[in-house]
Amino acid sequence: MSEVKYNAIVGQSGGPTSAINATLEGVIRGALDSCRISSLYGAFNGVEGMLNDSICNLTDLFVDRDDELELLGKTPGAALGSCRIRLPDVDDVQRREVYDTLFAFFKKHDIKYFFYIGGNDSMDTVMKLSRAMKYYGVDMRFIGVPKTIDNDLCGTDHTPGFGSAAKYIASTISEIVRDCSVYTVRSVTIVEIMGRDAGWLTAAAAYPSLIENGRGPDYAYFPERPFSIDDFISDIKSAFKRKTSVVVALSEGIRFSNGRYVGESAQSGAADVFGHKYLSGAAKVLENEVRARLGCKVRSFDLSLTQRCAGHMMSERDRTESICVGREAVSFAENGENGVLVCCERSSGPYGITFVPKDIEAIANRVKRLPDNFINKNGNGITTECFEYIRPLIEGRSVDIPYENGIPKHCIIKNTNKSRQI
Amino acid sequence: MSEVKYNAIVGQSGGPTSAINATLEGVIRGALDSCRISSLYGAFNGVEGMLNDSICNLTDLFVDRDDELELLGKTPGAALGSCRIRLPDVDDVQRREVYDTLFAFFKKHDIKYFFYIGGNDSMDTVMKLSRAMKYYGVDMRFIGVPKTIDNDLCGTDHTPGFGSAAKYIASTISEIVRDCSVYTVRSVTIVEIMGRDAGWLTAAAAYPSLIENGRGPDYAYFPERPFSIDDFISDIKSAFKRKTSVVVALSEGIRFSNGRYVGESAQSGAADVFGHKYLSGAAKVLENEVRARLGCKVRSFDLSLTQRCAGHMMSERDRTESICVGREAVSFAENGENGVLVCCERSSGPYGITFVPKDIEAIANRVKRLPDNFINKNGNGITTECFEYIRPLIEGRSVDIPYENGIPKHCIIKNTNKSRQI
Repeated sequence: MSEVKYNAIVGQSGGPTSAINATLEGVIRGALDSCRISSLYGAFNGVEGMLNDSICNLTDLFVDRDDELELLGKTPGAALGSCRIRLPDVDDVQRREVYDTLFAFFKKHDIKYFFYIGGNDSMDTVMKLSRAMKYYGVDMRFIGVPKTIDNDLCGTDHTPGFGSAAKYIASTISEIVRDCSVYTVRSVTIVEIMGRDAGWLTAAAAYPSLIENGRGPDYAYFPERPFSIDDFISDIKSAFKRKTSVVVALSEGIRFSNGRYVGESAQSGAADVFGHKYLSGAAKVLENEVRARLGCKVRSFDLSLTQRCAGHMMSERDRTESICVGREAVSFAENGENGVLVCCERSSGPYGITFVPKDIEAIANRVKRLPDNFINKNGNGITTECFEYIRPLIEGRSVDIPYENGIPKHCIIKNTNKSRQI
Repeated sequence: MSEVKYNAIVGQSGGPTSAINATLEGVIRGALDSCRISSLYGAFNGVEGMLNDSICNLTDLFVDRDDELELLGKTPGAALGSCRIRLPDVDDVQRREVYDTLFAFFKKHDIKYFFYIGGNDSMDTVMKLSRAMKYYGVDMRFIGVPKTIDNDLCGTDHTPGFGSAAKYIASTISEIVRDCSVYTVRSVTIVEIMGRDAGWLTAAAAYPSLIENGRGPDYAYFPERPFSIDDFISDIKSAFKRKTSVVVALSEGIRFSNGRYVGESAQSGAADVFGHKYLSGAAKVLENEVRARLGCKVRSFDLSLTQRCAGHMMSERDRTESICVGREAVSFAENGENGVLVCCERSSGPYGITFVPKDIEAIANRVKRLPDNFINKNGNGITTECFEYIRPLIEGRSVDIPYENGIPKHCIIKNTNKSRQI
């Protein structure tokens, strides 16, 4: 008995990562191998592309082009483009037009399987679409595929993309520590790390501090603990008793005990469509404070976008798992799952991962923070438990990537649809 | 007839690079192979260590430890520490005390060969010491060994350290371009690159723009051309006719036609929560300008220290040449050269380099800027000549480096001298 085949669509949403295209590679490989999927379409700019009918046929594009598909998985940034659209409430009848458009789009292209690669906010989209399905009398499979360097998705041990960002941050800060250690004059170097609500990436910055004396920053500060300028200055003074160069890592999301972001004043108050305030500037605020209070040489900077796009420093395990997560998404959809996120569960002995589908209703719009036992007593560094959590996600060399003209070679999927908004 | 053996000393000075320890590796290898050098001492913190007698015996430390020596050459930052001391004028009799101390130090340790790994300012030290020799009736060899990511030393085709920094910058900005290309809303991303007086590193940022459409920044601005905000805004407007995401690279050293640095021209006007005014960099000034004039999404950041310490992205050719330059320094000293810099001359056909000694008097304290034919007519990008100059310095994969616990392994030379200033 031959299976009835349907089409599938995949989109990418939210901030890109080094590994988001490895997950796309996994979804494409899963679709190419599937006996239930006819064509896998790629939506340009996530839901935007579905609303504008701006798509490409990924199974056609990559069939028998294994090398190009592998290169896609080693290319940072979201190859299909991304978006930050928030869908209206499903039960808001007045605003159901967007769902009408989307389900008409699915019908037009005979789409049954929907894969959305993204973080917290993107899972909100998957959840709402799987809820909306009942209004359109269709039988579809909406699957959330995790991706975020922030590692703050609930329900999963870690998120694809985190390992590569963590490897880049840990390596880079250990190199910065080497650079800063060369002079005999006292200096403070403050490095700001991404992570608005959760300190996972800052924990990665603190990681080399536990390897051997002198490899990592002297202190790290997390959004999970109230920030005190007095304690911060006191930490630096204490380090100056032992050494001349003090390096500090801190999360962009650190806040005072009154809940106010340290970096808040450095921005205009602009917020994104999800209501998140744009942050950056905590390090600059503290640079000025160190200069005023200690009078020593001080500089600050922000690793900024490099944290999420340094494809040249991909973690091998992150890449492998990111591909698997994409493949598992296809397999879960084939097995009839709907409204689920592909989650990673870590085994308790030697490192191992199993992939399980979890109900997206319990995951979307929530944030997983660093557990208490991952932050040290003084709130200025990580514990061995945290180190051991991160180690298997970054260990080994970086992924071997192809170079052309001396820089990493990338796979670029061109959007030739005229409907793309300019 | 057996040679009389003397001791040698090596120091590092100025800003560190990813390749400065590869050159140190070369000097150590040269000394270990030499039949004229007995011990090679390493001075901690350059001239400071010679003034404080804070040294280590490098030939003892690395003899029969080839793996450790190779690891040293793959470690960023100056392993012996650095300094920014400027020696007084040699003929200033009132201030000759520092020379008295230095030449007493050389005599005490039976030092004949002096190697100083550094940039412009460090070559001033080599020049002055080779001039001062006559006052102390000694026969020594003072050799300058080039290193600077800035590539602004005269007399040499390029400087060790530039290739690795260029490879990191070109690769990173091509990854940033991928990251920025994912959204459909208009945005400007401004990346500030090191190089106060010369635009070599900014040229490396512009390099991927000539590879294929979309790999590099849309525009690059150099200190060699007067900067005009009106032209800058007009460039961005013009790019917005073709695309939504505009990426711009600019040198920290760009100046207005009146000679004033863009970065010092303005404070952001904002003050932080403590009332401290921000001193902005060039990119920050222009970020505010774009926001005010175009009203689109705009962000800026500075690659900062990562440019000079990203040992994980070392250029293989830079590493090889950096080691050679160190070895050649030893060989020039053995052959009786004094007061010279080890310079690279590029052959005219397929890429090749010969090392030649050049009189340091003609090199110290001068700056080599980007030649006119390396910058395009509009002053906002590079030419094919510039691309072809950079290509052989960065081509191929990055150097294969060892990892431990998921981050690059480093060789650290511990300074156990109590005299080190804290």
